[in-house]
Amino acid sequence: MRGSLTIAEIREQPAALSRLLEAERRPLLRLARSLRRRPPPVVFLAARGTSDNAALYGHYLFETLLGIPAGLASPSVVTIYRTVPRLRGALVLGLSQSGRSSDIVRYVEAARSSGARTVAITNDPRSPLAAAAHDTLLLHSGVERSVAATKTYTAQLAVLSLLVASMAEDRRLLDAHDRLPRWVERALDADDAVRPLSLRLSGVRRCLVTSRGYNFATAREAALKLKETAQVAAEALSSADLLHGPIAVVGRRFPVIMIAPPGRTRGHLRRVARRLAAQSARLVLVAPGRGFEGLAHTVIPVPAGIPEILTPHVAIVPLQLLAYHLALARGFDPDRPRGLRKVTRSF
Amino acid sequence: MRGSLTIAEIREQPAALSRLLEAERRPLLRLARSLRRRPPPVVFLAARGTSDNAALYGHYLFETLLGIPAGLASPSVVTIYRTVPRLRGALVLGLSQSGRSSDIVRYVEAARSSGARTVAITNDPRSPLAAAAHDTLLLHSGVERSVAATKTYTAQLAVLSLLVASMAEDRRLLDAHDRLPRWVERALDADDAVRPLSLRLSGVRRCLVTSRGYNFATAREAALKLKETAQVAAEALSSADLLHGPIAVVGRRFPVIMIAPPGRTRGHLRRVARRLAAQSARLVLVAPGRGFEGLAHTVIPVPAGIPEILTPHVAIVPLQLLAYHLALARGFDPDRPRGLRKVTRSF
Repeated sequence: MRGSLTIAEIREQPAALSRLLEAERRPLLRLARSLRRRPPPVVFLAARGTSDNAALYGHYLFETLLGIPAGLASPSVVTIYRTVPRLRGALVLGLSQSGRSSDIVRYVEAARSSGARTVAITNDPRSPLAAAAHDTLLLHSGVERSVAATKTYTAQLAVLSLLVASMAEDRRLLDAHDRLPRWVERALDADDAVRPLSLRLSGVRRCLVTSRGYNFATAREAALKLKETAQVAAEALSSADLLHGPIAVVGRRFPVIMIAPPGRTRGHLRRVARRLAAQSARLVLVAPGRGFEGLAHTVIPVPAGIPEILTPHVAIVPLQLLAYHLALARGFDPDRPRGLRKVTRSF
Repeated sequence: MRGSLTIAEIREQPAALSRLLEAERRPLLRLARSLRRRPPPVVFLAARGTSDNAALYGHYLFETLLGIPAGLASPSVVTIYRTVPRLRGALVLGLSQSGRSSDIVRYVEAARSSGARTVAITNDPRSPLAAAAHDTLLLHSGVERSVAATKTYTAQLAVLSLLVASMAEDRRLLDAHDRLPRWVERALDADDAVRPLSLRLSGVRRCLVTSRGYNFATAREAALKLKETAQVAAEALSSADLLHGPIAVVGRRFPVIMIAPPGRTRGHLRRVARRLAAQSARLVLVAPGRGFEGLAHTVIPVPAGIPEILTPHVAIVPLQLLAYHLALARGFDPDRPRGLRKVTRSF
């Protein structure tokens, strides 16, 4: 059946997260302890596609929870321009579900050779990425068979938040992870709201997805799922950058998806929502709806009571469902995106 | 007349670059000398919108020419999450044409308070950004009156390439800057090719823009101009990321603009162009056409013989013209993008 792999893996996420929390906590604590002994002055994260969206989340985590400056690596510096930045002492995380993204493997090898402490975050302990890095953190997602990554994305987010919470010795945040499977389970209930929405949006060919801070990663990952699965030209923009030009594209009934869970970004996002409403955008809000009355055309509810830092793990779920249903509504097979294979070679 | 400010400023670029080369070389050399004495271990660049695209170019420059790891800053870490990353010893560049982007000013202030060496790159010596940073490099662009930035973008690129070339003591690259005004002058000749293209593309509502390495910045800036000026939902993707999912959106006659000047990225980009051709994309190539025979529908020529590092300063020019003509063809005023003002408040 069309999309049966994709929907099975979306629904498997609570179980996959439980497995991860069970199996990887010890290696994570061990690594965090060792990193606490010699805190890195700077962190770089190297990834592509979905993994790069998880990396973006990690970048915010390291800066906000630990005060360690973090950046996203550009592997082409190594693979195309054949230079190796001086990374002695830095922490370099390479993220790849398959562990076979060749430019990520090469970047991690180069970083290690220049003196960085390297960590692979991957679903495959026998992958080249795991072999390249000093340490490996595993996703425990089981084989991901659909081309569009879903369960490995939420697993990557969880590995990152567990690692950083452990490094910060933030016991409350660590404990909150135990409730993640249940929150994701409840987020899957959004299916009832998302299915009719996908029918109403089935004519949509382009849209913007926006958020800020931790959930900018959610916006990027949602836009990627919408592109690869539903063939919608969806672009993600931080709500701050949206105001610096791109908002000009938003005309009457132009669809904008905004991820606005409770937390520090909410006041800002409400002001951006007002600007979008003033330009008559068709706003789909992923959030508890309160505070946005009269601004959103549709509200996709997400469970309340989640610490802001863990909202990306949950808020992406209804958007995975939206991309899936939208693909079906438009006559595409979510399991087989046009022109893609599971492991991407970057040439 | 519609768009008269924008087109005047696009055409002013050779003169604006000449002014910059004349007036700012000494302060640049002085700052570079001081930075060479104590090379920063890491660089962070903070910017929004067009300036952030220049910052992306700067990020590649620091890594490839100097081997100094570089990252793009997320100002929301400071302005929303109220944390200050530990940036002691780091070089932090804040880029803003007006010098009034409030979150960039606050990020630079925070970086300075945490011990970073800070540099403002701005068009206004009396701006809050210039006041916040240890040093200021000026664009000498004259007042930019159109909302969409053009001449200040190429000036920002030139300040960055001059600074990094000076730090690297790369005399050949430094000297090559003297020919920039002439190359940009010749790039303006693309107007003849761009005008008819804009008529053919006037029905386009969405497209992708792609490149890699130094010219990924060009792709991002072109996509921004197309969105703000011509209201086309144009998304920029690095050609490596394009293969990790988004290429699924490319169907028959889907417009893709590729910037492929001579240089190290060209072999890779040719392979990506073949993939796009296999999916029947409508490929617009900004490049000397050779090597892409039978792959591109349209070739927008750029002058030959430019060192790869300086191609972004030139390759953006025909794309500024394209956004301008496309806006006129679609009945919009390029001088007054919908919903925008010259100085953006991020709230």
